[in-house]
Amino acid sequence: MSHSNEPETFTAVSQVVRTSPGRFDTVISPDWTIAGKPNGGYLLAILGRAATDVSVHDHVLAASAHYLHSPDPGPASIETEVLRMGRSASQVRARLTQDGKPCIEAITTIGTLDADTKPYWTEGLPTPAVRDRASAVRLPGTNPSGVRVSIMGQVDLRIDQEDAGFGIGKPRGVGELNGWLELPGGEAFDPLALLYAVDAFPPATFDIELTGWVPTLELTAYVRALPAPGPVRVQQKAQLIDAQKVDEACFVWDSTGRLVAQATQLAGIRLG
Amino acid sequence: MSHSNEPETFTAVSQVVRTSPGRFDTVISPDWTIAGKPNGGYLLAILGRAATDVSVHDHVLAASAHYLHSPDPGPASIETEVLRMGRSASQVRARLTQDGKPCIEAITTIGTLDADTKPYWTEGLPTPAVRDRASAVRLPGTNPSGVRVSIMGQVDLRIDQEDAGFGIGKPRGVGELNGWLELPGGEAFDPLALLYAVDAFPPATFDIELTGWVPTLELTAYVRALPAPGPVRVQQKAQLIDAQKVDEACFVWDSTGRLVAQATQLAGIRLG
Repeated sequence: MSHSNEPETFTAVSQVVRTSPGRFDTVISPDWTIAGKPNGGYLLAILGRAATDVSVHDHVLAASAHYLHSPDPGPASIETEVLRMGRSASQVRARLTQDGKPCIEAITTIGTLDADTKPYWTEGLPTPAVRDRASAVRLPGTNPSGVRVSIMGQVDLRIDQEDAGFGIGKPRGVGELNGWLELPGGEAFDPLALLYAVDAFPPATFDIELTGWVPTLELTAYVRALPAPGPVRVQQKAQLIDAQKVDEACFVWDSTGRLVAQATQLAGIRLG
Repeated sequence: MSHSNEPETFTAVSQVVRTSPGRFDTVISPDWTIAGKPNGGYLLAILGRAATDVSVHDHVLAASAHYLHSPDPGPASIETEVLRMGRSASQVRARLTQDGKPCIEAITTIGTLDADTKPYWTEGLPTPAVRDRASAVRLPGTNPSGVRVSIMGQVDLRIDQEDAGFGIGKPRGVGELNGWLELPGGEAFDPLALLYAVDAFPPATFDIELTGWVPTLELTAYVRALPAPGPVRVQQKAQLIDAQKVDEACFVWDSTGRLVAQATQLAGIRLG
């Protein structure tokens, strides 16, 4: 992996290399980190790539991950197990380990998304405000808590100006962040990149109260359609903070306004 | 298991018996079925019971399941693997098989919920309408498609009159069902019973268009607090139907109005 000034593509930093049937090696990039810790959605995409490789189907439709231990950047291993290989979908278990220590356990359902489908019913989805991407606030490489967020030097992540008060110490109390995400070099999103997109945003709790690390305990993503090229629109919202845990829902629309991915996560938080 | 007129308790029908370290037997009840197929949340509760048994912690906090093959009522086996045993939480993988065939693969995070906590921030939750349980419509043992729903002879599941149009062929098009759920004999809910509660309701798509079976592909549940005794209030809502799949969000409040569980699921549907 090169470390020139040009950021590597998402596809490059999420590569896996098969070492034996069902087993893979990967290298977790030091650039896709927050305070030195790799982003959880980025890691899920690596697992999804391995799971897709062992399936006869093409696209992750659903992925559920429980985070046991945050790995460090550097070499890691993935072990997969095909649970079922069906006609229209297959299920694959995938585990990321580092130095023999389990870090993430995931289950995926892999199928094939058809480029020619159209949504049948969308009434239950939120409708994010129509806003101008150019006026949105691009997140810098250091967050409001003073933490180094290397990953912001890789992706172009912008929060709507109206939602970005947390950056100047003025969270609104709404618990919702809307914005845009673009991959390095403007690379088109695919289902694996969407597994990253659903965990790319800062915790929506930053719009309630600034805290330190909000570590993901569980993340479930559904990929609903093949995304059109271009930046995606993202809505990340907190629902409940109780007993030092928060759940967040995430919705991702492609550049044509189609909902292409959604997710929920449960995370730890030092509030309540 | 008896088949007297008195329904068995949820605790009884979700029992597991340890046969060797990490392995359990169970008997899936023929009474907790829809068209002869066991309810998916009920099956997840069985897996959750096995996972809790092998953990030093007490309560399922998060459970993610992918459904590979619908088992039949009768004997089934569960195999668990402790992925990590931490101080405040542990993670356990659990797999339900029948006649050697994998049926459900689940990952759980087990922790301990404290009875004395209070929610810290609830602004991101939906607020279900205040309605009268007595006037709600109790679901019968046969659904509008003519399918036998044995499980309705066990639990007391009521849909708000305002949302129950699907029962007389008049779905509203909103894709949301609000109502109440009570366990047999009024048994108090616990975290395991909540894993059933998040999948107990009919598909919220019945309020859009009546279809046949809407099989769950993936179900993720978060248990957020220990529930008070009494029936729970449930909101089940569809968000998007695309390419013959629907996702639904579910929220469960206890009798004091506290959010105790929430879930999302991805299911197959013959629409779109």
